[in-house]
Amino acid sequence: MSENARYSKRTQGVTGSAIRELFKLTARPGVISFGGGNPSPAALPDDIVSDISRELVATNGKVLLQYGMTEGLPSLREALVPYIEKEFQFKTDANGILPVTGSTQAFNLLLDAYTDPGDVILTENPTFLGATQAMHLHELRVVPVESDDMGLRMDALEDAIRKHRPKLLYTIPTFQNPTGVTMPLERRRKIAELAAKYDLLVAEDDPYHSLRYSGTPLPTIKHFDTADRVAFMGSFSKVISPGLRVGFLVCEPKLLRKCVICKQSDDLHTANLNQAIVEAYLRRDLLSPHVAAVCKRYGEQLDCMLDALSKMQGVRRFTHPEGGLFIFAWLHEGVNATDKLMEAVEKGVAYVPGTYFYPEGGHDSTLRLNFSNSDIPTIQRGMALLDECLKA
Amino acid sequence: MSENARYSKRTQGVTGSAIRELFKLTARPGVISFGGGNPSPAALPDDIVSDISRELVATNGKVLLQYGMTEGLPSLREALVPYIEKEFQFKTDANGILPVTGSTQAFNLLLDAYTDPGDVILTENPTFLGATQAMHLHELRVVPVESDDMGLRMDALEDAIRKHRPKLLYTIPTFQNPTGVTMPLERRRKIAELAAKYDLLVAEDDPYHSLRYSGTPLPTIKHFDTADRVAFMGSFSKVISPGLRVGFLVCEPKLLRKCVICKQSDDLHTANLNQAIVEAYLRRDLLSPHVAAVCKRYGEQLDCMLDALSKMQGVRRFTHPEGGLFIFAWLHEGVNATDKLMEAVEKGVAYVPGTYFYPEGGHDSTLRLNFSNSDIPTIQRGMALLDECLKA
Repeated sequence: MSENARYSKRTQGVTGSAIRELFKLTARPGVISFGGGNPSPAALPDDIVSDISRELVATNGKVLLQYGMTEGLPSLREALVPYIEKEFQFKTDANGILPVTGSTQAFNLLLDAYTDPGDVILTENPTFLGATQAMHLHELRVVPVESDDMGLRMDALEDAIRKHRPKLLYTIPTFQNPTGVTMPLERRRKIAELAAKYDLLVAEDDPYHSLRYSGTPLPTIKHFDTADRVAFMGSFSKVISPGLRVGFLVCEPKLLRKCVICKQSDDLHTANLNQAIVEAYLRRDLLSPHVAAVCKRYGEQLDCMLDALSKMQGVRRFTHPEGGLFIFAWLHEGVNATDKLMEAVEKGVAYVPGTYFYPEGGHDSTLRLNFSNSDIPTIQRGMALLDECLKA
Repeated sequence: MSENARYSKRTQGVTGSAIRELFKLTARPGVISFGGGNPSPAALPDDIVSDISRELVATNGKVLLQYGMTEGLPSLREALVPYIEKEFQFKTDANGILPVTGSTQAFNLLLDAYTDPGDVILTENPTFLGATQAMHLHELRVVPVESDDMGLRMDALEDAIRKHRPKLLYTIPTFQNPTGVTMPLERRRKIAELAAKYDLLVAEDDPYHSLRYSGTPLPTIKHFDTADRVAFMGSFSKVISPGLRVGFLVCEPKLLRKCVICKQSDDLHTANLNQAIVEAYLRRDLLSPHVAAVCKRYGEQLDCMLDALSKMQGVRRFTHPEGGLFIFAWLHEGVNATDKLMEAVEKGVAYVPGTYFYPEGGHDSTLRLNFSNSDIPTIQRGMALLDECLKA
């Protein structure tokens, strides 16, 4: 047997996240990173989680350290019901919610349960690289749909649905990764309608929803989902801690049941202690004040980075997000952001070239900047270095 | 589209773990359960984990609550090297070890990375139901190989390899689930030889290894693996806590890299705190004394159950494990253990009918008994109830 033919077809040609590999290259001491999607260290509540962990294991350790149900901790599922209704503006019940090991797992389970190799999945263009990789591992045909400063274009979306008869649409409607763009209410409503009309499943990924620094919160696509064609994925990675790996999935019962079956083989269940920490955040009303403090911090960081961008001659245009973690920028035509990256790292600043987020590549003069992981002085220094680099 | 055709082919006909469903039926208040594979509540170290969690998050929370690498916590990988060498008698290095979200995930990743639908996988007969379900979700052709009181029969194994040209062999050589049987040294060596000879990958699942109450520890199959054809899966579920969901995978570098790529889409990484708790157990030498105490307890429980079985007229024969969690028993011919189960639950005791563990069904007069989750008075009461039920 040839060396490579040993391995599964689904992994042939999938090389791992280019970004995670890039981080290894750019993670030099002293380099300011606008590359990741990491929360600020200051936003990670180590003091509170430390106390909660001790208390939860001391008082309920015989349950938390034992096997749990694949369906999740019943008390967390119950606590999620009012949280989801308030935060995401749709109703569900405890049995309709599956706690998962990060929303990464939610999407993977959806693909396991709902797709076969060769199925078409539509995405924004550009879109989240981690999701694209999961699509490739499921041997899906990824069709990016033209997107503008308000997200997916509705005409292009309906055309693509008619042309490609997709099984699924993957979208991040709020403070999208990588663009930071938010889809307006009418497009959200329209997507729910198209999903019903064409029997399309929408995978709505909304991890940044609570990180809004200006403007008015919008209802989710799931809010308009009268036909049960939206699977909603939430995460606590951006509002509590990514290292805990807790997210949740909400979808129609039969699909949820299939996801549970797949999760049994995936990791049996999400670690109980991690679920219980999130539950404590919800039940003790620790989340709202924490998110408010984080939003204040990130909002100032966003403003600082936008301000710097507006003065940079090397930048042709950039998005103006009202929340989330990312700004997307366009350099002048002919400037290759991948070529510029190693030069930038030499100078002491890193970003992610935008081309990686386009399923079909190209768009070489774009880049993604993260503002959550650096404080204001660091953003100012980093943007000054980037400015120098792009002038050259 | 028909209601069911919406969902993926891989999930058609997979109904979820029959055992996990059975537990919901048999989990009545007051029923003594010999059904699960749960550690004893007394064996779950809530006091120690409570203190460690607080301390780890307080001192290193900014790292543990942040995103981690898919490859795992570097310090845990390093701590696993001497642990593996001492406990499982094979050498590896930190880069050859992948911490995972329970060894359930290790097997799922192996199947993702190594198999395609239609590939043949060999198993013991009977075998672990969770593994069989993962095989079905990967659309593998499961071929059980005749097994005896020393595990897989070598003649039957080589015949099956020649006949079916399998991609993979799944085996639990030590205190097998469901039988409790341990494969002797010569068979272990022989399996490594056959794997090399026929270019077969062996998935060696060894979660019970440290739970030995009598006899002499044996080297793993991986110990004899000079051709790099064994993927070894370990777990901390049975020796620290299943609720924490931490296990590990060791295999050749190219396969491990494929598993890492699949894990990126699966759950990005195993929760850092959970990895760090296991690391603390290893580095502070907390594991050995804990396992010693657990073994003393479980060994007495095993003896108690074996003693009760030896006096039960309704039981034709049973295995005599030297460790692990399970005893497998044969009732008299014509007695259906599934039929008897609801009667037993009415009387106040539950077990798992053995038929579920046979990939091709049948073997209706067999059952699996767990002795780890009940203390001695409970085992005595439960076995008395079972005796009554089987006499009737």
